[in-house]
This record gives sequence, structure tokens and C-alpha cells, in this order.
Amino acid sequence: MKKKPNILFIITDQWRYDGLGVNGNKTCKTPNLDKLAQEGINFTHAFTTTSLCTPARASLFTGRYPHNHGLLNNTHERDAVSLELPKTEVTLAQIIKKEGYKTSYVGKWHVGRDLMPDKWGFDIHCGSEDDFTPYENYRKNFIKTNETKLSAEDIVSGTKTDPKVKSALKCKWMLDKDESTVCGTDPVPVEGTATHFRTNLALEQLDKLNKITDPFCLFVSYFGPHYPSIIPEPFASMYDPEQIPEVPNFKDDFKNKSYVHHKKLQQWGVEKFTWKDWQKYIAFYWGYISFLDYEIGRILDRLKENGMDKETIVIFTTDHGDFAGSHRQFNKGPLMYDETYRIPLIIKWPEKTKAGSVSDSFVRILDLMPTILESAGAEIPGNIDGRSIVPILEGKVPQDWPQEVFCEQHGDELGLYSQRMIRTREYKYVYNVEDKDEMYDLVEDPYELNNCADDPQYKDTRINLEKKLLSWMRKTDDMIARWAASLLGGRK
Amino acid sequence: MKKKPNILFIITDQWRYDGLGVNGNKTCKTPNLDKLAQEGINFTHAFTTTSLCTPARASLFTGRYPHNHGLLNNTHERDAVSLELPKTEVTLAQIIKKEGYKTSYVGKWHVGRDLMPDKWGFDIHCGSEDDFTPYENYRKNFIKTNETKLSAEDIVSGTKTDPKVKSALKCKWMLDKDESTVCGTDPVPVEGTATHFRTNLALEQLDKLNKITDPFCLFVSYFGPHYPSIIPEPFASMYDPEQIPEVPNFKDDFKNKSYVHHKKLQQWGVEKFTWKDWQKYIAFYWGYISFLDYEIGRILDRLKENGMDKETIVIFTTDHGDFAGSHRQFNKGPLMYDETYRIPLIIKWPEKTKAGSVSDSFVRILDLMPTILESAGAEIPGNIDGRSIVPILEGKVPQDWPQEVFCEQHGDELGLYSQRMIRTREYKYVYNVEDKDEMYDLVEDPYELNNCADDPQYKDTRINLEKKLLSWMRKTDDMIARWAASLLGGRK
Repeated sequence: MKKKPNILFIITDQWRYDGLGVNGNKTCKTPNLDKLAQEGINFTHAFTTTSLCTPARASLFTGRYPHNHGLLNNTHERDAVSLELPKTEVTLAQIIKKEGYKTSYVGKWHVGRDLMPDKWGFDIHCGSEDDFTPYENYRKNFIKTNETKLSAEDIVSGTKTDPKVKSALKCKWMLDKDESTVCGTDPVPVEGTATHFRTNLALEQLDKLNKITDPFCLFVSYFGPHYPSIIPEPFASMYDPEQIPEVPNFKDDFKNKSYVHHKKLQQWGVEKFTWKDWQKYIAFYWGYISFLDYEIGRILDRLKENGMDKETIVIFTTDHGDFAGSHRQFNKGPLMYDETYRIPLIIKWPEKTKAGSVSDSFVRILDLMPTILESAGAEIPGNIDGRSIVPILEGKVPQDWPQEVFCEQHGDELGLYSQRMIRTREYKYVYNVEDKDEMYDLVEDPYELNNCADDPQYKDTRINLEKKLLSWMRKTDDMIARWAASLLGGRK
Repeated sequence: MKKKPNILFIITDQWRYDGLGVNGNKTCKTPNLDKLAQEGINFTHAFTTTSLCTPARASLFTGRYPHNHGLLNNTHERDAVSLELPKTEVTLAQIIKKEGYKTSYVGKWHVGRDLMPDKWGFDIHCGSEDDFTPYENYRKNFIKTNETKLSAEDIVSGTKTDPKVKSALKCKWMLDKDESTVCGTDPVPVEGTATHFRTNLALEQLDKLNKITDPFCLFVSYFGPHYPSIIPEPFASMYDPEQIPEVPNFKDDFKNKSYVHHKKLQQWGVEKFTWKDWQKYIAFYWGYISFLDYEIGRILDRLKENGMDKETIVIFTTDHGDFAGSHRQFNKGPLMYDETYRIPLIIKWPEKTKAGSVSDSFVRILDLMPTILESAGAEIPGNIDGRSIVPILEGKVPQDWPQEVFCEQHGDELGLYSQRMIRTREYKYVYNVEDKDEMYDLVEDPYELNNCADDPQYKDTRINLEKKLLSWMRKTDDMIARWAASLLGGRK
């Protein structure tokens, strides 16, 4: 029997779909991921379930929508509605472990507050939220002065409060606090960063796993390019802010849109940000992306050097995107635009995926769980929402493959808030449960500026989208499906 | 040592502050409660924590705000964010039981899905959500035909689907369902109703408790006057709909208010309700109130007949109010008007409360837990948010008694939604986390029609209210206090 394929899953945090050369970005350099796409298949219509870390990540590992796995918002903050994934959930790691896989996890987890990857099927985990001390000690080799005091929390984002960080942009997020650094230059060289340190941990794992005969599943999970974008040279000055073109929806006036657009600007203190401000941020955001691409390149190189690449499926994706000034917004939140819901996804499965192929099939982050299970020859649980994309990887799109995706939002650190979305190739309909709904004609208005939900010429299309959305809510046992029936599918 | 006082706590569901003769209602008759007020103290400024059953009731029993006890919305529906009160919570019943009290619970609980009063400190409970069969059997004595098929759920609201119910008003709540009865006439006589049956259970308890020497704490919890108002004669036709005067805020145009005002009308299918429609509803709502007053009278009479009244503290209140057409709204929801947040509260403590006294001190539903504990001589836990009102009952208002209340909302069956409110004697400020905030000048605009949050003449007052609200959020460890700092207290 042929050995089962290894799985190398590289996941990042807050990486926009268009933050990749292969996805059309003409400035931001991602040579290693572009190369991976040339060797594998690149997805143009991959979507997360929720534009927030915990719910999206829990969907990835369980194959279920947040309204089914139960982690509705981030688990590390005081506002978490649940602290851990319910014990009744089953992760992909727990299943393939039973199939003989060695399972390792490096880096950010964020699928629960205290129960780390080792409680959810991973043999080994390191460099995660519960394991900052090794990097703190490591970093001391690169900054010799006494003034540097790093707390575990600082390390999450690299070097948030390192006094040597040169801030490029500050934001007054909280009225009672000093301004926080949104992006800036890390004083340490590439080799001294947390990102590089985590790559080293991943390389160690790769080398160890190369010595065993069992197949493996290795997750490498980076904390970036999530803000604050505090990065080392040469990436910190790789992009000239002035050369970054204004996005077409920067001047969104929020006319006829949900009010939370305004509240989010206030929350982050970016009401008065000009495009010049955003250019500073984006230069660092793209720098962070190029930095990560460089680090990911080290992993892909080692895979080849170790002769493991031919028997390893490589998957690259992220949990959600980043507004980075699109719609004048920062970060992400209860705004269901493509900038934060559409995600990059590249998969290379040697001898399966056709080199350089592109798929425009709708894929959800929760489809990756059954995909991995199928590739590992494991049984797929009956209660999941995801569907294996193995046929698509083999170039055979099933006739009944969905022509839309559905997403959801339950609020973020600002407060609780319910949204549901259907996104087809041509349209998007956002059910803002407690505010006016939004609809966008993605062909005429790809930057989602004009809410056409009340435009009579779209009435039939709108009702059709509402009905599909309601039908999905019912089919997947959405907790608010019952009353949505009063508001969807028959609005006067 | 003098025997500790007994406690008879009568709680109802969805009873507006102004639904009492003693509170100024000139039409709706409540002779028994008016008499209780004449014998005790009536509160004009009592407020619930949240206008939703579970969070409010959990606050009553734990003395803590919902953001601390953790039950943020109703526990019986699919959208419940938590199913049960956390095991770390302690109820008033658990504490006074240790002080030698016999604890009994009759009727609606709704503080968790499966853990009934017996799991939270009550020796006995009956007539609750888990105990419908006895009434189903009892009702058969009053309707002899075979056509009546009652499910346990129907009994919650009396006789929801009894085919003999004569509907006075129907509502199309769900697009895929038939219209539901909002109010109507129950074909059985008073003696055949669930309300009367529960009173009988309470009388049985009173008689049993009269035979023991230990002090007791008896909760009698009615399911009404929550809709549907399906009530027997003579109450069903006690009030002439046409005589019910239009409330001054029925014509609220929601101008400059949160959008959820519109969504709630759609949810309940009452967008087109005229005042004539509401008159029908209110006639039955008031009928239900008078019916409950009659039933409560039976309990108060028995207390006297048994000679128990002189050693029993009687408390009457509710969990929250009902819009009943005010602001054109039905039921309650993420709208923080006095109609649903201000609640009736009457307390008679023989030899303590001054007969016929009135208190305008701000009292919260969560203050009743420490009040009961103090009256029982029990120690008050240090981690609660409530404060005993025993000094107020004794006519001595502490100098530092608060001059405002704070309330919260986390959404209802429609979806999740965050709101916080400060309510002083003169003003109300509502922090609609994801929508525009609201502010009302309660002296100039007691019916809360004009949102003056953006009116420059109120700027200083508004900032002051915002700061107080933020300060309360921080002091009570509100889960969204951290980011509220960006939006409260310094808005430009």
C-alpha cells in the first residue's frame, strides 16, 4: 500500500486575498507563494466563515459553521461568549491521528482560551500562545540593552512595546490610553524576530518528522500579517508608501449602509485617516506579507531539501482578511466585504493538482477539514458542514458544486452583532439582523460601494438571494433561522 | 430569638410599570395589588437589568448583572449563548436555605434550560416548565370534547392552540406559518385556567408551610401577562377596546433612532397595526393583569386566613415590561424604553414598611437578592452587584444611594445585539454599540420620542452621562468596557 500523503498546512492571520502577486497584486512581492501556486492550484473564490480569528479557525478544524461549533467570537477577551470548543466537537487532528498520522502544531492556535492543540489531537505543539518564554529568551541575543522589557503579550505581535521600535503610524484606540503603534520597524534583524523563530521551530519539526516512517500532518501558524505590522528590515522599507495607489472604495460615504460602519471608525480612531495615513500602514502590511513569504519560502525549501516535497500536500491559507483602508476601515469586523471574507488559498498535491491551475469554484475554509480527511483516507464525520474539495484538486468539479457561499458574524470585541451573508459570483446580500440589509451587484460594483437592496430593479434578485440565505440558515440549523423567516424572502 | 420573617415573592412575566391602578392606570383594575401597596411600600423607580426573561430572572436570583452571571439571552431557544447559569453562581435560595429557611417554588422558572429550581436551592418546585402534565390532566375536567389536544408547550401560555379559543387578534409572525393568536378568549372558566391551577399549587404550599415552624421562602411565578393574552371571562371582556386612549408615543416615527426599531416591527408583523389593533391587544393585556390581580388576591387572602401575614414579607414584581403598542412596538427587545425596563415593585414587611408609603429611590431587580438575604439575617456575598434596600424599606434612604440605574441588553431571539443604558431622573442615555446612540430628556420628553444625543444644547449633559456609563461598565467588569472607551465620554 502506498504511503499516505503528508500534510503541511501553513496558516496566517489576516491576509487579504489580493495580498499576493499571483492574485493580481502588482506591487507586493510574494515570490515563494507565487511559485507554490505555479506548482499547484490557486483558488480565486475561497472564503472564510467569519472575519474573526477564533470562529474561523474553529471552522477550519471542525469543518462546521460557527453557529454549529459554538465559538462565536474570540476566546481570549473578556467578551468571549464561550471559552472553549465544546467537548462534543471533533477536530481533523483527532481523526487523522487515529489513521496513523503524526500531528504537530507550531504557532498561533486561538481555538479556545486554555485548551491548546495538544487537547485537540496534536501530539506536539510549540510557539503557541502558551509558549512565549523561549522566544523572549531568544530575542535577548539580538537586543543587548537592559531597557527592553518584553511581556508574553508583546511577543504575540512581535515587539509591540519594545522601546526601540520605530513607529511609522500610531492610533489612539482607547481614550484612556496612549496611542498604540499600528506599524513600525523592529530593531532586530530578520533572524531575531518571532516570525523567524517560529519558522525555525517548524524546520525542526520537519527534520524530526523526516526521520519517521508514519505520515504526518504539520500545521505552521503565523501570527502575522495581523496588525501591528512591526517588521524588520529590509521588509520595513521595502515599499514606498507614496507609490501605493488609492483603493477605489476608500471614499465610501456609507450612504444607505449599516451604522456600524461609523462606529468602527470611531473604535479604531481612524475617522480622520487620509489615504496618506493608510499608505503608511499598507507599506508595512505588504512588508509583513513579503516577510512572511520569505519565511514560508524557508519551509518550502527545507521540504525539498529533505526530499519530502513529493509526498507532501502543501496548503496555504489564512483565517480572514484585513481592511487596510478599504471602505476607510481598519482591521475587520461586522462588515461583510470581500476584503475580509475572501481569502487566499493555494494547494499543491504532487501528482494530483495540475501545476499552475486556477479554480474559481466556491470553497469555504470549513471545506479544508473534510479535504484533509479524504486525502488521508479517513472517514468524514456525518455532522459536518464542509465538503471535501478533493475532486476539485483533481480537476473534476462535481456538477452539483455550490454556486455561492454563506458566511456569518456574531460580533467582535466592540459588542455582539448578528449578520448573515450569501455571496454568489454576481451578487452579495448581507442580512444585518438589527440594521438595514445590504446588497451589492459585484459585476457592476465590484468594490461594494452602492447598497442596492432597496433598488426596485433588483427586487426579484434580492428576494431570490434572501430565500437562498434563509434556506441555508434552516438547513444548517442556524440559531436565528426561526425569526429570520419574518425578515427574509418576502420583504415588502 | 424572634422567628425570622417568611418571604412570599410573587413574580409575573411582562407586566408594565403603568399596568397597576396604584401606578396611575385609571382603567386597568388591580384592587388586590393596590391594597398591598396601601399596606406596604410602592416603588416608582424600580428597573430590570435586561428586558428579557432569563437574564432578568438570573439577576434577581444571583444579585448580579447579566454580564457577570453570564445568562445573556433566553435559554430555551436555539439561539441561547449559554444553557445554564454557571456552576460558580450562587442563588438567594441556596444561601437562605442554609439559614434554616424552607424554600419552595411554584411556576415559571426560565433561569436555564434543564436545571430547575431544585438544582438552585429550592426544596420543592411545581407548576414549572418541566411539570405541565398535571395541568393538562386538570384542564380536561373543563373541556369535555375530544377535539382539544394540548401539548405541553401550549400550556405555557394557557391555551395557545386550543381550537375553542376565540381569537381577538392574530399576527403573522413567521412567513411560513399561519397567523398566531396574540390575544383571545379562553373557553374554560377561571377555575380551568393554568393561572388558577398554579395559584392552587401556591395555596397548597402555603398551607403546608403553615404547619412547620421553620421560616419559609415561597416564590410564586406566573407565566402572564406575557402574550398571548388568552384569558377567561369575565376578564376577556372586562375592558372596552374603544375606551383605551392612544399612548402619546404610538406615532413614534423612529427619526434619528436605531434601525432595529424597524426590524422589530417586521419581526412581529405589526408594521401596519393601527391604534385600533393595539386597543384589542391592550384590552386583553389589561384583562390578563386584572385576572392575575384576582389570583394574587387569593394568595394574599389565604396568607391572612392562615394567620401568616404578620410574619411574612410580601414582594410583588415582574421580570420586565411590555410595549403593547407604545413606540408602535410589540413584546420587548433591543429598545431600552421605560415601557419595558421600568417595573412595578411593591413590598410589604409587617412592622417595617410604612403603610401606603411611596419610594422614588432607584431600585434594581438585582437589589432584591441582598434585600431578602439581609431580611433573613444571612450573609451577603461579596461578589454581587446588588445592594440591600432594607434601609429604604425602613424609611431611611442612605445618603449615598445611587441617583441612576444602569441596564444592558445582549440581543433576543432575532439576533445578538449589544446595548447599555444609564437612566437618571432627568435623562436616559442608550449606548447602541453598533448603531447610533439615543438620549432622552425625560422631563421635557417623558415618552422618549426625541433622540437628543446629537443636539448641541445637551452636549455637556451627554458627555457626563457617557462618562458615568463607562465608569459603571468598568466598575462592574462589563465584557465590552474596554472598547467602549473609544466611543463613550469623548465623542466629538
